[in-house]
Amino acid sequence: MTTADTLDGIGESATLARIFPRLPASSLQLLGPGDDCAVVAAPDGRFVVTTDMMIHGPDFRLAWSSPHDLGWKAAASNLADVAAMGAVPTALVVAIAAPATSPVSLLEGISDGLRDGLAALAPGCGVVGGDLSVSNTLTITVTAFGDLEGRAPVRRSGARIGDVIAVAGVLGMAAAGLRLLFADAVVGGEPDATAAAILRARHPALISAQLAPTPPIFAGRIAALAGATAMLDLSDGLALDARRMARASGVSINLDSGAVGSRAALDGGEDHSLLAAFGAEAPLPAEFRRIGVVQAADPGHGPGVLVDGQPYDALGGWDPYAGWNGETG
Amino acid sequence: MTTADTLDGIGESATLARIFPRLPASSLQLLGPGDDCAVVAAPDGRFVVTTDMMIHGPDFRLAWSSPHDLGWKAAASNLADVAAMGAVPTALVVAIAAPATSPVSLLEGISDGLRDGLAALAPGCGVVGGDLSVSNTLTITVTAFGDLEGRAPVRRSGARIGDVIAVAGVLGMAAAGLRLLFADAVVGGEPDATAAAILRARHPALISAQLAPTPPIFAGRIAALAGATAMLDLSDGLALDARRMARASGVSINLDSGAVGSRAALDGGEDHSLLAAFGAEAPLPAEFRRIGVVQAADPGHGPGVLVDGQPYDALGGWDPYAGWNGETG
Repeated sequence: MTTADTLDGIGESATLARIFPRLPASSLQLLGPGDDCAVVAAPDGRFVVTTDMMIHGPDFRLAWSSPHDLGWKAAASNLADVAAMGAVPTALVVAIAAPATSPVSLLEGISDGLRDGLAALAPGCGVVGGDLSVSNTLTITVTAFGDLEGRAPVRRSGARIGDVIAVAGVLGMAAAGLRLLFADAVVGGEPDATAAAILRARHPALISAQLAPTPPIFAGRIAALAGATAMLDLSDGLALDARRMARASGVSINLDSGAVGSRAALDGGEDHSLLAAFGAEAPLPAEFRRIGVVQAADPGHGPGVLVDGQPYDALGGWDPYAGWNGETG
Repeated sequence: MTTADTLDGIGESATLARIFPRLPASSLQLLGPGDDCAVVAAPDGRFVVTTDMMIHGPDFRLAWSSPHDLGWKAAASNLADVAAMGAVPTALVVAIAAPATSPVSLLEGISDGLRDGLAALAPGCGVVGGDLSVSNTLTITVTAFGDLEGRAPVRRSGARIGDVIAVAGVLGMAAAGLRLLFADAVVGGEPDATAAAILRARHPALISAQLAPTPPIFAGRIAALAGATAMLDLSDGLALDARRMARASGVSINLDSGAVGSRAALDGGEDHSLLAAFGAEAPLPAEFRRIGVVQAADPGHGPGVLVDGQPYDALGGWDPYAGWNGETG
């Protein structure tokens, strides 16, 4: 068989036979792929679960993302949700729907990206099952599981007045990478692979932050052990996600513009960094840097986000229904 | 707001606010939707998990399936995989990608179908989380969880020579319903809603078996308690799925054509009935009926399926890559 093989050419069984050996097992899997279900250990009698779809068009373009990037990002974005509960990622299931005429190498590349992303970000976490389907629109759905190791989950609603607001990971880099791609890697109205490759060579950190992010997954467990009172994954931008934490907690979050760094760091989404609140008395874990404080919500304005004490309502962020223009991406 | 509202018209938050109240909670959920992850109890320290996509085109047509049907079938097909391990379904997460211009009533109908399918087939099982996305192709990914209540999972590989082969649920009805739809509900080369409605009124059992199946989910736990040695969910047809059990177990399965009933019952997929092997000494649970026996694999032929003692190689079944013709469905 060659890389020119297509999914409809070799069929499901042969495709699975080429994918399975690439995927890592989970250290907690009791029964892996091949039966009606997988069986996964839940050592403390609970598990955390999150699910997230990546869709060709609104979420990625094959002209910009390699198959390896797609697998990596699908793993990273779901692992960040598990980490944001203070849990340790244990296992994924992965459902992929692709056009029937796709090369098998597309699924092999996605599998390799899942494997390498898991190895880099959450060693011990593996793929315990999945589903292959055919669709006109390439779609990757990852469902991820984690173990709380006996701790309470760290919710977004626990921030208390006086807490320190801190972040682990980058701010605004993924969005800066996406802006570069739209600015310099669209040719004749279409995403262009050659232009994207040139751009990535020139700005590897920014483009990779967008296409294959490396959020600090291990920092979620560290934050929980350090007593974080609230945490969430920065998927839609610092300002919007901080507002979610503020509203869920019934407080306001006052960000320090000098510590945040830039307007782009405030509004840019998809970094999958971890935003957490910690009691002011204890030292911050080394992975986190202070960017603000929790204060009482303004009686008139209600819970929300302030920057240097001023209400910040110019929220960026991403609404999958309202935000997508099929023409421009 | 009215039923004419569209997803891009009202946005993600308002859509979620209309969906969440329709979805049932799980009796084992410790933390439901609204945070980065849900938290689900795993009483015996393990959980079973399966994931399955339904894609507009290869898996369903909106001209034939109502939104309620889609939610119901997405629940039923995943619950059957959990049941086939001998587990009790506990929770689902649901990821839905729909065109941005879809009416909100599409997602409301899917949600109602999930709710009603869960209530009918697996009371206590609920939706603990999910994801909404935009896609040109309507796609529903359900990931389902179950509890083994301290028992070993019932695998497909445990059938032993001398075991009785038995089935709980219908055989061939879903495929018969699909044949009727292709024969009588395609107008001018396109699936037709009016013709499908007329057909459903005339053949409610067959059409509903295809569009909104009611597999005997509770029978999975009953089979496990009765000591089933092997079990799987009949998704691709009795002959093909029995061959899977035979090969995994290193035996042959000899089906009794009189008990199976018809060639359509042998080849038709998507019933999601449960096929199980039981020791010959004990009485079958009332939900199961005997349709064959397990015998030694023929040394020349190897493990496989026989009908009335004759090798049966004319396997039907469904390969998602090789089997789909985008033109005809």
